Amino acid sequence: MYQTVWIEGSSVFMIQQNLLPFQFEIYECKTYFDTCMAITDMTIRGAGAIGAAAGYAMAQAFLQFRDDDERAVRVREARQDIEHTRPTARNLFYAVERVYHAGLISPESAVVESQKVAQKDASDSKIIGELGSGLFNKKANILTHCNAGWLAFVDYGTALAPIYLAAKQGKEVFVYVDETRPRNQGGKLTAWELHNNNIPHVIIPDNSAATLMAQGKIDLVIVGADRIAANGDVANKIGTLGRAILANEYNIPFYVAAPTSTIDINCPTGKEIPIEERNPDEVLYQWGIDSNGNPIQVRICSPGSEALNLAFDVTPAKYITGIITEKGIVKAHHQSIKTIMD
Amino acid sequence: MYQTVWIEGSSVFMIQQNLLPFQFEIYECKTYFDTCMAITDMTIRGAGAIGAAAGYAMAQAFLQFRDDDERAVRVREARQDIEHTRPTARNLFYAVERVYHAGLISPESAVVESQKVAQKDASDSKIIGELGSGLFNKKANILTHCNAGWLAFVDYGTALAPIYLAAKQGKEVFVYVDETRPRNQGGKLTAWELHNNNIPHVIIPDNSAATLMAQGKIDLVIVGADRIAANGDVANKIGTLGRAILANEYNIPFYVAAPTSTIDINCPTGKEIPIEERNPDEVLYQWGIDSNGNPIQVRICSPGSEALNLAFDVTPAKYITGIITEKGIVKAHHQSIKTIMD
Repeated sequence: MYQTVWIEGSSVFMIQQNLLPFQFEIYECKTYFDTCMAITDMTIRGAGAIGAAAGYAMAQAFLQFRDDDERAVRVREARQDIEHTRPTARNLFYAVERVYHAGLISPESAVVESQKVAQKDASDSKIIGELGSGLFNKKANILTHCNAGWLAFVDYGTALAPIYLAAKQGKEVFVYVDETRPRNQGGKLTAWELHNNNIPHVIIPDNSAATLMAQGKIDLVIVGADRIAANGDVANKIGTLGRAILANEYNIPFYVAAPTSTIDINCPTGKEIPIEERNPDEVLYQWGIDSNGNPIQVRICSPGSEALNLAFDVTPAKYITGIITEKGIVKAHHQSIKTIMD
Repeated sequence: MYQTVWIEGSSVFMIQQNLLPFQFEIYECKTYFDTCMAITDMTIRGAGAIGAAAGYAMAQAFLQFRDDDERAVRVREARQDIEHTRPTARNLFYAVERVYHAGLISPESAVVESQKVAQKDASDSKIIGELGSGLFNKKANILTHCNAGWLAFVDYGTALAPIYLAAKQGKEVFVYVDETRPRNQGGKLTAWELHNNNIPHVIIPDNSAATLMAQGKIDLVIVGADRIAANGDVANKIGTLGRAILANEYNIPFYVAAPTSTIDINCPTGKEIPIEERNPDEVLYQWGIDSNGNPIQVRICSPGSEALNLAFDVTPAKYITGIITEKGIVKAHHQSIKTIMD
């Protein structure tokens, strides 16, 4: 029914994800800078959704400064602002690049291009769902980490798209949802998506994955990606690396689902991917709803102690069974990746 | 200054751990059944502390039923109640066994024996600290999971005892504290202990361990144990297995610190260790303090979704570098374990 983010006139509208799953609100960003703030504070999050929002923000800047004498300078500054919102997701830089060049022709071209980027994200996700669902047998128990569902993209999602389609095809899917500390995108967003789509699932503490694998309860792991290096190394939500090593230990297939817009062919390996460190308060505090259903933030850690909040990690290609892209399922290997990017 | 649990007259007193780190209160259990409830609801938790509390509860039963015509039946029933509080920690069964047999002589013998069990736990922990601190170089970055500090035992602790002593010896120790979802004993209790002892540390989401290991930031891992099988398999807080596999992958020493009272020589392997499954609400809700410092419980997961709450996991002996006991540091191997248990 909804897409996660869209442009109308000079405003960008988005589902306010930091209120989910307890409230469903649409947030309006009237300027490119509003959209930047929404990306930074994670009002919108998820690789594809960030990419689309960033593209729209770039288009907003062209609209905003169309009558400015120094519009060339202004839009370049705006581009920098947008590119500084979040460092890891490749889709953001991909979208900004495309929309910036279109905007040099006219603000209207920028808007059209930003819509194309968003539509491409949705159609890529749809194809990823179709290709990915072929990996499941009639009955499959899947582990996923963080949220790479439709909320994380413009529509459909990546890691969850194959699950949605497999369920529609009558396959018996069951999803173990890593809660995904510190921000709990699994327990908050993936669970919300799966519940709304009637997909059988259960939320697990991140600590449970190893035991469930040891017990033979996981048939395969699918996660999304924020950036994929040319050699197949994958940056994704913190905790992905641990899941990949565990899956490898127990001989469980470990798939990454992402459109080719997440692949950074100019980034040779995972070592060169910048990893965002976020505010320690995201670890020390947790938000939820009280017994009256009112949103509230509580301190859950010992006062006086500090926290370290690495937002992403890098999973070396050797642990990855395959990457599900809109151009096919490929090996996490520089030759295979080069082939689909050419 | 404090021990975690003690007996005075016919009452058992304990630090109310489910209020920490935000409030420090002493809780009085007037009957053996009060003590059972305190173990079940985790007012007291941690292998050694549970063991001591269970021993005291057994002594309380002998005192309580001393004038009962059917005291033999009553204390046997009490023993069953105590043994049904929590299934995994070996120390509980060890303590109950010892105190029950002493109580057959007289209620006073039961009390004396329960105190001996508690004192032995404290002195074992002290020796574990001495042996364990020898594993650290002048400078050591240590990862620990859950809370195996003095709060989890009668005093000193197991995994944290070597850290406390090493710091006293002038070694430069730094502790990465897994927050340890779902109950956050790391972020709540271990951080509180370390802060109060001026040990440099930082709380990390459980998901961060793999990345820190990959970055070479962890020199060794030390955890506690709830039960150790005769072959060296170790049951401990959920998430321990994952840490052990990761440490193994990155060639980082992985130590388990536990007194021999945690070893269940009659349990051949980890497969036979009963694993407790706790209330899903511990995952779906989280408690902390609001901005006024008042304790509050909040729902953090999507309404309509359920959770799975496995309290412990089993780490196969092959991933364990050594077990630090009060009788020496031994290999996690049935022959080595048999030798120290004889």
